[in-house]
Amino acid sequence: MKKLVFIYVVLISAFILYVYHYHLEISRFRSFYQQEKALQGKVDEKYVMVTFQSGMDYWKRCLKGFEDAAQALNVSVEYRGATQYDVNEQVTVLEQVIAKKPAGIAISAINPTALTETINKAVDKGIPVILFDSNASGSKAFSFLGTNNYKAGVTAAHKMAELLGKRGKVAVITLPHQLNHQERTKGFLETIHQEYPQMEVVAVKDGNGDSLVSKEAALEILNEYPDVEGIFATEANGGVGIGEAILSLKNKKVKIISFDTDKRTLDMVKQGIISATLAQGTWNMGYWSLQFLFHLHHHLTPSLQSGYPLLPPYVDTGITVVTKENVEDFYAK
Amino acid sequence: MKKLVFIYVVLISAFILYVYHYHLEISRFRSFYQQEKALQGKVDEKYVMVTFQSGMDYWKRCLKGFEDAAQALNVSVEYRGATQYDVNEQVTVLEQVIAKKPAGIAISAINPTALTETINKAVDKGIPVILFDSNASGSKAFSFLGTNNYKAGVTAAHKMAELLGKRGKVAVITLPHQLNHQERTKGFLETIHQEYPQMEVVAVKDGNGDSLVSKEAALEILNEYPDVEGIFATEANGGVGIGEAILSLKNKKVKIISFDTDKRTLDMVKQGIISATLAQGTWNMGYWSLQFLFHLHHHLTPSLQSGYPLLPPYVDTGITVVTKENVEDFYAK
Repeated sequence: MKKLVFIYVVLISAFILYVYHYHLEISRFRSFYQQEKALQGKVDEKYVMVTFQSGMDYWKRCLKGFEDAAQALNVSVEYRGATQYDVNEQVTVLEQVIAKKPAGIAISAINPTALTETINKAVDKGIPVILFDSNASGSKAFSFLGTNNYKAGVTAAHKMAELLGKRGKVAVITLPHQLNHQERTKGFLETIHQEYPQMEVVAVKDGNGDSLVSKEAALEILNEYPDVEGIFATEANGGVGIGEAILSLKNKKVKIISFDTDKRTLDMVKQGIISATLAQGTWNMGYWSLQFLFHLHHHLTPSLQSGYPLLPPYVDTGITVVTKENVEDFYAK
Repeated sequence: MKKLVFIYVVLISAFILYVYHYHLEISRFRSFYQQEKALQGKVDEKYVMVTFQSGMDYWKRCLKGFEDAAQALNVSVEYRGATQYDVNEQVTVLEQVIAKKPAGIAISAINPTALTETINKAVDKGIPVILFDSNASGSKAFSFLGTNNYKAGVTAAHKMAELLGKRGKVAVITLPHQLNHQERTKGFLETIHQEYPQMEVVAVKDGNGDSLVSKEAALEILNEYPDVEGIFATEANGGVGIGEAILSLKNKKVKIISFDTDKRTLDMVKQGIISATLAQGTWNMGYWSLQFLFHLHHHLTPSLQSGYPLLPPYVDTGITVVTKENVEDFYAK
């Protein structure tokens, strides 16, 4: 009988010891993971990206950056685009997004003023808003992340000088009534003028954002100035149009620098028709927009007594020069 | 005897069940925490901030931002400053830091060229380098985070216009041979000229970065143009000097806008001698420098085939207008 009691006691003690050990282990695990700091949100925390003209390749890399940041921070994202290049449609889409009270909204604004009222409504409701790619500078959005268009023009000028051995006549085909294109043109003109005394910009023409009009403009330039050796297009359709103009002329050698990385442009870079194109930092726009929204949502930035959060007001998302050497990296996947 | 065996079986079963449950629980915990993504480094991952003139109040908020980001990301930081305003000393400090192979280095460069070689050495060794506050634009550092000085001048002009009811004569006291001060002055002059037709900048004087010289400059201006109603100082000693000049004149009412938030400046804002001062986004400089270094160290940004990481090349860390209303927020803690 004594032996039996002894076995009972041993068994029960082992059991109690095990239970004790188990609880100790669990609580050690818990405190270990809770003590370690990390930037981490919740999966039901949803951030929304809103663009205009949702079909464009251009947004794919923006969204990839947005998604990569969301995965790193353990939160969810949704993409909403107006299908047309239509102001009212983007306002409607934005209204619908606001109604769902997301954790934050990143917007590329179709024009600098049309969305301001709706953006301000979101901010007044406590929803963080960040602008990327295209700004609405008068709004209450907390930051803008996009290309420094003047610097993009400077980059184009240096690349053109490199291609032409720092000498010769060049021209620009642009959209003269749109601010971002005015800035790209200005950066190009001022850099050629100030830094390359043996180069000259002999013509600046309107390409209307259209490849046919740009082709005609390029032909006119080359007719008027047959010794033009390089043309800078401040947008993608212009670059393709110039490419077609040069192809139509046979044996004509003109260096083309274009903008953005749609498929037609990249194909022409691959074929050597376009010498270089400027890729915007679209992944950066999406990635750091989400980071900023996350920081606003979780109140991770300092703020004024008024509660206004202090975030960098502008991020230059950068430019990469795309040539035959690195063109494969830029096809949309 | 059967009863005894039954008790044994029940006890042993309970024990086995418990052990099984325990292992299940532990593995559930483990996978729960491992599945959840988060931005998190290791405590032995050390990032170093390097400045010149380590005693300055100015760096405290930069370091606070750097530390806050480190805490959020579970990594360690170290601060190293050259004690003097001395080029060779900062190079030496940087060399020492590189020798320890930290996870990343954030540097404020004493001048735009002196550190370039040493910075490049760090980058070539695979140590990520970010510049903040003062750039070395020719170096291989991956990004620069700092004040947009032209925009700071624009902000000063708008504030001055607001203080003077958009009319009247104003002047500037600056450091005419230093690029950042040239840009602040240019932003101020161009904005007054373009946007406030009833205002005029009648004088721009050299204050030598010294409060006594600036005091003399202010007295000269007010002697020559007794109807000057506002003076913008592009650096802190200038603001204090102008404040002392105005105090010495009794009953003279001149609105002063100054720069930065050292104690003497903030005290004069509190007393109403300086109407407003411009605070730079120092916390942003430190916080986002560490975020960028963390992203470089962990290869979280996309990169070119060459391996070159694509990070935003510039972050405008912002300006806040400090007046009597919010001055308490800006005293160094």
